[in-house]
Amino acid sequence: MKAPLGFAFSATYAGIRQAQKDDLALIVSALPANAAGVFTQNRVQAAPVKLSRRHLKLSRGLVGAVVINAGNANCATRTGDRVAALTCQTAGKLLRLPPYQVLPASTGVIGVELDAARIIDSLPRLIEGLNPSRLEDAANAILTTDLVPKTAHAEVHLRRGVARVAGFTKGSGMIHPQMATTLGFVMTDAHIPLPSLRTMLKRGVERSYNRISVDGDTSTNDTLLLLANGASGVRPDPKEMPKMEAAIAQVMETLAQAIARDGEGASKFITILVAGAPSDAAAASLARAIANSPLVKTAVAGADANWGRILSAAGNAGVAFDPSKADVFMQGVAVCRGGLAAPFDEPALKAALGSRECEIRLALRGKGKGAARFWTCDLTEEYIRINASYRT
Amino acid sequence: MKAPLGFAFSATYAGIRQAQKDDLALIVSALPANAAGVFTQNRVQAAPVKLSRRHLKLSRGLVGAVVINAGNANCATRTGDRVAALTCQTAGKLLRLPPYQVLPASTGVIGVELDAARIIDSLPRLIEGLNPSRLEDAANAILTTDLVPKTAHAEVHLRRGVARVAGFTKGSGMIHPQMATTLGFVMTDAHIPLPSLRTMLKRGVERSYNRISVDGDTSTNDTLLLLANGASGVRPDPKEMPKMEAAIAQVMETLAQAIARDGEGASKFITILVAGAPSDAAAASLARAIANSPLVKTAVAGADANWGRILSAAGNAGVAFDPSKADVFMQGVAVCRGGLAAPFDEPALKAALGSRECEIRLALRGKGKGAARFWTCDLTEEYIRINASYRT
Repeated sequence: MKAPLGFAFSATYAGIRQAQKDDLALIVSALPANAAGVFTQNRVQAAPVKLSRRHLKLSRGLVGAVVINAGNANCATRTGDRVAALTCQTAGKLLRLPPYQVLPASTGVIGVELDAARIIDSLPRLIEGLNPSRLEDAANAILTTDLVPKTAHAEVHLRRGVARVAGFTKGSGMIHPQMATTLGFVMTDAHIPLPSLRTMLKRGVERSYNRISVDGDTSTNDTLLLLANGASGVRPDPKEMPKMEAAIAQVMETLAQAIARDGEGASKFITILVAGAPSDAAAASLARAIANSPLVKTAVAGADANWGRILSAAGNAGVAFDPSKADVFMQGVAVCRGGLAAPFDEPALKAALGSRECEIRLALRGKGKGAARFWTCDLTEEYIRINASYRT
Repeated sequence: MKAPLGFAFSATYAGIRQAQKDDLALIVSALPANAAGVFTQNRVQAAPVKLSRRHLKLSRGLVGAVVINAGNANCATRTGDRVAALTCQTAGKLLRLPPYQVLPASTGVIGVELDAARIIDSLPRLIEGLNPSRLEDAANAILTTDLVPKTAHAEVHLRRGVARVAGFTKGSGMIHPQMATTLGFVMTDAHIPLPSLRTMLKRGVERSYNRISVDGDTSTNDTLLLLANGASGVRPDPKEMPKMEAAIAQVMETLAQAIARDGEGASKFITILVAGAPSDAAAASLARAIANSPLVKTAVAGADANWGRILSAAGNAGVAFDPSKADVFMQGVAVCRGGLAAPFDEPALKAALGSRECEIRLALRGKGKGAARFWTCDLTEEYIRINASYRT
């Protein structure tokens, strides 16, 4: 599938990380795009997050370029603010954009000074490499402990033509669903007014990035940007807005799922479904509590139908429910009915849980209609190996 | 050190767990003891928790015996309520106590029916084995994945004589500090009126069991009981109450620390100190967030001075603080000053972090005087191995 019109991408190795692997990426929109962003809610915020917020305000939501580096979070660094500002100034100069139409984003280790020269010196080469076909290269350059690049595409057929949506993202650790988690970039060539774009981002995040969890940690650098440059000339009419929004949300959902699927050390992708809760928010809390339980995640890793841990995790969600009306299903098999053990074929379910895709469903037989979907991964010894030695 | 007067203990193998290791324990007080209890706040509560609450109410806080089994949580079971009730009835009959002066407690797997006969048939043998010197045996019988028994003792020298305090506890997984965590039993032969006893338990829990974390999961069975039978004849006068309370709190703190020290798969015991927070509660939230971060816990496992993860975890605590006034110390070495990297001898600190005892200190240089101590353990591959196959 083609990238949205009017966007170009580039990637290069700037020497920020030791491994000889692209670590600097660039997104450029031929005409400044309407942009909406959500950022980490961590009290400790990286310099690029603070600057991106400021630039979005200064530019009134117009973005011409995004410069992303991997290998260094540029967080809790003495020179952080200056490095981020210098990056935007230099990129702006080279691209003939006001600096505030350039957004920086960083991911990697915290507390190590980021050498501005590595970025500054690489920018001309990076810009030279710009090409509409290089979205995959950019997607690769922003990865850290990720094993696979994460991209998603959609086409929206509207009355006045076709609009395209594409996105890429990164992240496999320090992932917690309290906001736009990790780095994500979603672009469309449709023309979408800023207020609509902001609403679409907000609602889309709620059912995608806010519905995944790897380890319950929230990064200092989380950033999700939605850019709409109108380069297709297609302007959805008011009736078509829901269709447009659905395509954008679908791309965000695919990207978010890809993060959970590639969770650090993950051997299994887990979908958690909750139904019958007092509200959608309550359902999400229940699903989140199950997704964040290390005991549930290790049980799935061991293909163990340990539904007691699922029920217990739900009990810790801070949501009132009657355990005696709770059913639990794993891989579609009822393992708990009314809060009690349901008879099931243990060897068969163990085999089914050996799959790389695992589904946990909690059905509350109450009056509520609240439902939620949530995605996570299992917790394996590999997660420990990766994180016991990430920095050094 | 001797056990408090007027208490006797026993343990036996009732065949509840497969491993041929004592799984049934009994505490008996010669004269009914004033008793205060705190229990899990999980929405899903085991039958023995529900019955213990009821019995404490019915008996107006008088307890003659506690029957504890390991190997089965008696939670989410069809016959759970009946099994717990039958246990208390039978034990009460044999011990000549009203059934409501007997409290049950269970720990182990959730959702598997507990065969009442195993307990009932073992009770005469268990009672026959009662002896004031067998506290250690009881402490051993209640263990599940614990590697070591956990006991603590204290003597309080008061004007009218010596009062003794002793306790034992269990737990190494599904540990989260939202309440009395896991099973714990603290006994004293001092005479302490019920209202004072309840206050002492509440305040003691706040600085002991509510200050530990292994994996952030809260069990369905958590129970902590404080029994005071007055058998020493020592009645602390009002001025001596703080001394009495301090001894009880110290025993609870030692027991709680022993749980964190024996956390599933733990290779290191971590003490987290926070100072300079807006309030003690805020300090506790910050300490808890650091303790619960899998990224911090894996870094410690890897002897990695990854202070960025500590700062980031604190930033997620929901407590307002200025990162630029935050200092972080590991093993007493400043690794972060004012939110920025502090120069330190990396190989020396790595060696120091190889110790089995690790200290993390977060000092906020604000106006606040809030402080907290918190205990946890590192997160290792062994935790995964234990929990990926616990049930089957």
